[in-house]
Amino acid sequence: MSIRYRRFLNDPSRAVAEMLEGYVAAHADLISLQDGMVVRAVPKPAGRVGLVIGNGSGHEPAMIGWVGEGLFDVNVAGPIFSSPGPSAILTGIKAADRGGGVLLLVSSHAGDIMNADLAMADAEDEGIRVEMVVLYDDIASAPKDQITERRGGAGLFFVWKMVGAAAERGDSLEECAAVARRARDRSRSLSAAIGTVAHPVSGQPLGDPDDPALSVGMGVHGEPGTRLGEDVEADQIAEHMICRLIDDAELSDGDQVALLLNNAGSVTLMELSVLYRGAVSALEKRGIEVVRSWIGPYATTLDMAGFAFAICHLDEELPALYDRPARGAGFTMIGR
Amino acid sequence: MSIRYRRFLNDPSRAVAEMLEGYVAAHADLISLQDGMVVRAVPKPAGRVGLVIGNGSGHEPAMIGWVGEGLFDVNVAGPIFSSPGPSAILTGIKAADRGGGVLLLVSSHAGDIMNADLAMADAEDEGIRVEMVVLYDDIASAPKDQITERRGGAGLFFVWKMVGAAAERGDSLEECAAVARRARDRSRSLSAAIGTVAHPVSGQPLGDPDDPALSVGMGVHGEPGTRLGEDVEADQIAEHMICRLIDDAELSDGDQVALLLNNAGSVTLMELSVLYRGAVSALEKRGIEVVRSWIGPYATTLDMAGFAFAICHLDEELPALYDRPARGAGFTMIGR
Repeated sequence: MSIRYRRFLNDPSRAVAEMLEGYVAAHADLISLQDGMVVRAVPKPAGRVGLVIGNGSGHEPAMIGWVGEGLFDVNVAGPIFSSPGPSAILTGIKAADRGGGVLLLVSSHAGDIMNADLAMADAEDEGIRVEMVVLYDDIASAPKDQITERRGGAGLFFVWKMVGAAAERGDSLEECAAVARRARDRSRSLSAAIGTVAHPVSGQPLGDPDDPALSVGMGVHGEPGTRLGEDVEADQIAEHMICRLIDDAELSDGDQVALLLNNAGSVTLMELSVLYRGAVSALEKRGIEVVRSWIGPYATTLDMAGFAFAICHLDEELPALYDRPARGAGFTMIGR
Repeated sequence: MSIRYRRFLNDPSRAVAEMLEGYVAAHADLISLQDGMVVRAVPKPAGRVGLVIGNGSGHEPAMIGWVGEGLFDVNVAGPIFSSPGPSAILTGIKAADRGGGVLLLVSSHAGDIMNADLAMADAEDEGIRVEMVVLYDDIASAPKDQITERRGGAGLFFVWKMVGAAAERGDSLEECAAVARRARDRSRSLSAAIGTVAHPVSGQPLGDPDDPALSVGMGVHGEPGTRLGEDVEADQIAEHMICRLIDDAELSDGDQVALLLNNAGSVTLMELSVLYRGAVSALEKRGIEVVRSWIGPYATTLDMAGFAFAICHLDEELPALYDRPARGAGFTMIGR
């Protein structure tokens, strides 16, 4: 099977820079480019906590689409699938600083944490108050007794939405960090994909393109998962994945969750809707109520034919943050 | 090359029904199912014009995602790639009727027009005032002197957004129809794709899956276009397409346009952003200013590796309608 990637790009080595130019131009009322970073077109009021994230590119709309009101102040986009370097993150921290301190949110991948650590130390040397929260939620990436070894996955969007709301309403740096940890600890995700995708610059596939089986628990850079077979129906896939999430989160009858279904790239909305239906049914069988939902492309892996379910076990505090308005190029929510 | 489709579905013959159930469940605050149709969860005030569209499925979020405030009242989703029948459309017209008449908007494809005509006649027999506007914008589908023979394409989203705003603010049936015709006559689109996709039920590819060339002017059901070659860069593709749109619309130096870049399925946001950048550059070279932009999946063809550009030549009246708020499951816009 052919792995093609170079479809609608110019020189692939310029793809990230050209993407940033094009995306920001299309959303000039919301975001702009500053020193190669995506920043809010209208900065937060002075004194508020600034939110920064750095990440590898290739996962759009993560995170270029999540800069805006009620969301991030600065996104430092790195090369495809690679963390931006410490100096770029430091520049991002400075740009996000509105005098209330800066919260650096890091999806747990080794390079991202290392570079964020270095940038944070440099920022503190320059007198900026910075907190870092490392986020992880992918239950396939490490067992539960090594939960801090888990990777970041689609569950992080719950955290980002809620901490974005907290920072916007004026919570302190410590309070924002506490919201991030609280939302993280109540969120879980699990992904699935068929086939693989090719790196746009190298052309190399991330996995075995000839394997027709569904793999569950694959990472966002093609890290391998468990093969589930070739002819599994959507309802079976959804039930299998949701039961693993319920068990890991130790949910029980009567609990309320937010459910996110992420499109990793080329899954149709028809498929997503069918999978969502199966997931709700699986949750209901266990007595768990879905009270908030998001379906769509949140973090993609280029055009991967995959998806992820994420759940957030809601408590008394989180829905108020979940429901506050947000406005970014890739995510808009009218408050309720 | 393998054409796979049956990825994340149950029985493909139930895919549309299960999709509707899942999609509506995920967006229960905005839409609900009524007699198999997607309707607004909160109906429009009495006396307003109702907006109805019927369409084949497989193009999501068109049009299930475009039911809501400032958008459609009712979407009658047909089988995959086929128009719903006249009796289903009639049911939709009745559901949309709030006493101010019903505007039936039809994307120009033979089956859709025929079925809409029959439904409209039946509705009038039942005493409901109905206007129909047939919409077309795809410049590749017929020459300009046979403009009414053209197919509907991505330019229709301009029309839908603006007529939705007109109906919401209380324009009469005649005024809404006039907005639809005015926006249609000022909109143009052109699509491009590589490869093809398979029909989920039959498994049949819509075109030649082994052809690696880029085809420009392909229809939303795989109707053939013009081959542009294999190794064309994004900037060249964008310039070629934009120049054809400018010429067909007879735009000149100083004109202002809205620009839409539609993802037909599996194009990454990285590619879309690079293409958008190329399009803006091509428009600027001709002295045309882009003052409004949308990028994203509006009308897909399952997971087609394709996209379309659409432009709307703005006048004094249209931006006010373009900018009004809208809230659907697949399209949310905060007013400006």
